Amino acid sequence: MNRYRIDIAYDGTSYVGWQAQPDGGTVQQEIERAIHEMTAERTRVHGSGRTDQGVHARRQVAHFDLHKDVPCASLTKGLNAVLPADIRASKTRKTDSSFHARKGVRCKEYRYFIWNGDVVPPFRRKYVTHVRRKLNAEAMQEAACVLVGRHDFGAFTANPNRKVESTVRTLVELKIVQHGSEIMIRARGDGFLYKMVRSLAGCLIRVGEGALPAGKIGAILASRKRTARVPTAPPQGLFLWNVTY
Amino acid sequence: MNRYRIDIAYDGTSYVGWQAQPDGGTVQQEIERAIHEMTAERTRVHGSGRTDQGVHARRQVAHFDLHKDVPCASLTKGLNAVLPADIRASKTRKTDSSFHARKGVRCKEYRYFIWNGDVVPPFRRKYVTHVRRKLNAEAMQEAACVLVGRHDFGAFTANPNRKVESTVRTLVELKIVQHGSEIMIRARGDGFLYKMVRSLAGCLIRVGEGALPAGKIGAILASRKRTARVPTAPPQGLFLWNVTY
Repeated sequence: MNRYRIDIAYDGTSYVGWQAQPDGGTVQQEIERAIHEMTAERTRVHGSGRTDQGVHARRQVAHFDLHKDVPCASLTKGLNAVLPADIRASKTRKTDSSFHARKGVRCKEYRYFIWNGDVVPPFRRKYVTHVRRKLNAEAMQEAACVLVGRHDFGAFTANPNRKVESTVRTLVELKIVQHGSEIMIRARGDGFLYKMVRSLAGCLIRVGEGALPAGKIGAILASRKRTARVPTAPPQGLFLWNVTY
Repeated sequence: MNRYRIDIAYDGTSYVGWQAQPDGGTVQQEIERAIHEMTAERTRVHGSGRTDQGVHARRQVAHFDLHKDVPCASLTKGLNAVLPADIRASKTRKTDSSFHARKGVRCKEYRYFIWNGDVVPPFRRKYVTHVRRKLNAEAMQEAACVLVGRHDFGAFTANPNRKVESTVRTLVELKIVQHGSEIMIRARGDGFLYKMVRSLAGCLIRVGEGALPAGKIGAILASRKRTARVPTAPPQGLFLWNVTY
């Protein structure tokens, strides 16, 4: 068997998410279909993790195995010829069989984009979350600083079904960057819980709006319980930005 | 009557162009419909000029008259509430009746975006023209310099029906800007002929590909005749960037 690592970018607008679903319409299935169309082999594509419906990826990483030995440049070119234009294979490389796109993750980076002005430019409309009320970026950064580090992020996930799994994660960076009307939240860490970035973003937006004091974030984190104080921000502002191994 | 100046941004992907057509699907008609929906008045919206099918506008400027006296902030907000998300009113202001969006133009700026790499990022796919062959940006700039100034641009328009109109225009700037895999052509001038920017872009791309020597541009310009040497570049890379009065 030959193992390939593939770097993928996608516009999540038209997909129900990364992970294969019985009704289709997922990025994973589109890539598996494209590999089959190109190589006549059926294989499973293993991503670094799921992305939800409507979430984008600047760089998602996945691996898959093929019986055929295909040159990487041909694989990239061939897949892009059969994939829809909103999913692109950026790069393909051969790896040894020890590489695993999910288990081997060292760091993941997500970016969440907020348009904080009256009018969203039409070219950005599918890639930002529109927040009309003027956000206080300094208060957001103050709250973000409390969240950085190794913590139990139980208050910032939405997955009551996976109680067995540990909710402790290390957030290496949570940075607010403002450029004119656009506010970007950059989150880097060793791993993220289900809907964790959107929960962090939802909470930070509330702080920015003045609806939640930055000083209350410590108590929410310590509670380790998800409540209505932490809303889940909409998916279209979120990008899986990078995965490193 | 009250005259309003409106600044508009639109993603041209889904429209057959700016100018009203019997079958609809134009930006002008969408704005007239939105004004009617909001004010119950039927009015004509006069743009600074047409844009073709698939061409975008970061800033198009238009004017229209209303019997009603509507506060500008309400007009902007109200129009955006009924306009589709791919057309936005960025700003509305009152002007005196001497303002004319087309006749009063002092300078127009267009930008043409080329993706000159193997893989177009999915988020840019509707806003760039993909050119795979490596472009020589220096040769493009050399050719562009010949075109700057007051010239008869008859060789760079595609409108055999308007022979009466003068084809002399002043190109104030024609600049090639490269950022990584993206090459942008910035064109500024007092006015542009039908398909002139796309013809300039098509010609400069041929120069960049090495298919046309930069030294031949002077002769093409001097011929004042449109021939197959000057192709029309595709519309989706083109943005009407700014209009000044």
